Amino acid sequence: MDAMNLLVTVDANYLRHVATMLASLRLNGGAEHYNVYLVHSDIADADIDEIATYCARLRMRLIPARLHKDDFADAPVTAYYSKAMYYRLLASKILPGTLDKILYLDPDILIINSIDGLYGTDMGSALFAAAAHTGLTDIAKHVNRIRLGTPEAQGYFNSGVMLMNLEEQRGRIKEQDIFDYVRANEDGLILPDQDVLNALYSDAILPLDDSLYNYDSRRFETYFLTSGGDKDMDWVMGNTVIIHYCGKTKPWKKNASGRFVPLYKHYMQIARRL
Amino acid sequence: MDAMNLLVTVDANYLRHVATMLASLRLNGGAEHYNVYLVHSDIADADIDEIATYCARLRMRLIPARLHKDDFADAPVTAYYSKAMYYRLLASKILPGTLDKILYLDPDILIINSIDGLYGTDMGSALFAAAAHTGLTDIAKHVNRIRLGTPEAQGYFNSGVMLMNLEEQRGRIKEQDIFDYVRANEDGLILPDQDVLNALYSDAILPLDDSLYNYDSRRFETYFLTSGGDKDMDWVMGNTVIIHYCGKTKPWKKNASGRFVPLYKHYMQIARRL
Repeated sequence: MDAMNLLVTVDANYLRHVATMLASLRLNGGAEHYNVYLVHSDIADADIDEIATYCARLRMRLIPARLHKDDFADAPVTAYYSKAMYYRLLASKILPGTLDKILYLDPDILIINSIDGLYGTDMGSALFAAAAHTGLTDIAKHVNRIRLGTPEAQGYFNSGVMLMNLEEQRGRIKEQDIFDYVRANEDGLILPDQDVLNALYSDAILPLDDSLYNYDSRRFETYFLTSGGDKDMDWVMGNTVIIHYCGKTKPWKKNASGRFVPLYKHYMQIARRL
Repeated sequence: MDAMNLLVTVDANYLRHVATMLASLRLNGGAEHYNVYLVHSDIADADIDEIATYCARLRMRLIPARLHKDDFADAPVTAYYSKAMYYRLLASKILPGTLDKILYLDPDILIINSIDGLYGTDMGSALFAAAAHTGLTDIAKHVNRIRLGTPEAQGYFNSGVMLMNLEEQRGRIKEQDIFDYVRANEDGLILPDQDVLNALYSDAILPLDDSLYNYDSRRFETYFLTSGGDKDMDWVMGNTVIIHYCGKTKPWKKNASGRFVPLYKHYMQIARRL
C-alpha cells in the first residue's frame, strides 16, 4: 500500500497526545509510510516544528495546514465551540484536491493493530465510514429523534474515527449547509461536529464495527456481554484496531482509571522515548 | 554497553511466553544486543530452532545449553520439582566461564522500560541482586524464621528476577551445599529454588527495589498506599522496569484478570506480529 493519509485537527495543548497516538500507530499500524495532515489555526511555528521533527523520527511526514481568520468567515461560532469544530467536516475543502481518501483520528485514541483493513474499506459512494457505539441503541434513537430530527437513522455515529471519501465529499458537502444547520439548531447542539455529522449525513455514512475501529474504552463489559462473552480481553487485544478513550476523564490525567488506562500510559512513556 | 546477557530456564510449554517477554524487551529494554542463554534439558530441536529464529528476528542471539541426564546426577528431585529447579541457582556451573554477569528472568514478566540501570548495578561481592516483595514484611519474617531458619534475613527474596555475579558465584556457590540443604529440608520446601536462595544466600544478596525491578502485578494498591500515593499508574509506567505476573492465574490465560493483564495481552499480540 502507498502511504496512508491521516487527518488530525487539534490545538497546541493536544499535540503531545497526538504524539502518543502516533507512537502507537508506528508500532502497531502496519504501514511503512504515513502522511499526517494537521489542520489548525493557531499552533505556533515552534510547536509545529517540534511535532514535525517527532513525526520524522517515527518515519512519518507531517503536513501542516494553517487556516486563517478569513477562512470560513461565515461560520457560526459561539462561546462553546470555535471554528475548529468544522475542520473535520470540511476537510474536503481544506485538503489538497489530489487526495481521494483520508482517515480522521481524534487525539484520544490508541492504535493497537494494523489499520490496513480499515483504510482499505471500499466506501462506494458513502461520504464517511464511521462507527456508532453499540449497546446504546435506545440512547441513539432518542438522540436521533429528539435532537437531530432523524428518527430512522442507523445510529448515532461517533465522529472520533472517520474514514473520509474526499472525492465524493468534494461534490456533496457544502459548507453553507453545515453553517445553516448550526445556525438553526444552535441551542440544541451538544457535540456540535458529531451532531452535524449525524443530522446532515447519517444516510451517507458507511457503518463500521465499533468493537474493531472505535472501541469505547469505558465499555468492555458491554462488548463482552453483548457478544455472549466472545469479545473478552484476548479478543480485544487480538482484533480491535482502535481504542477510543471516550468520556471526560482523559487517560493522560493522573486520576484516570479504567482497564485500558495502563496501556495508554505505557504508550505515553513509549512516545517520550521514541 | 556491550550485549546484555540474559538467562531463561524453561521447558517447551513456556517458550511462547518467553517470546512475549523478549518482545517487550526488544521494544523497551534499551539495549541493541542481547544474548539469550536458554538452559534446558528436554526441548526438542525443532522448538529450539523456532525460538532461535524468533530471537534473530528481534536481533537477539539465542544460545541454548542442553543439560543431560548425568549432569547434576546427585541432585535430589521429587514428584513436585525436577532438576530444572537447580538451573538458575547453578547457572555459574552451567554457563561459559567467560561470562561474568547475567540477568535471570522468569518467563512471566514484561519489561516496560530500559534495563540499563539494573544491568549496570555495581554488585560488589554480592552473589545475586534480587528484590523482596514489599508490603509483606510480616510474612517474610515468618517465612524466614519458621521455614528457613534465617530470622535476621533482610526479607524473602523473589527468585524471578536475579542479576547474577557469576564471577563471585563460581568460587562460592557449591552444588553440594544446595543438594544437602534440599535433602535435609525436603518436606518443608514450598518454592524450592526460592527457598534455597533465601536459606543459603540471603546474606549475599544485594537488595533491589521491587517496585522498579520486580513489580508484583497483583499489588498496585500496596505500592500505591505504602508510597503515600506517589507510585500511581503514571509512576509505574514511567519508572518500573519489570512487571512480574506473580500468582497462579497467569496473564496469558483466558480468565486472567487484573489491571496489568491487558498490557500483557497486548504484548502477546505484538509478539505474534514481530
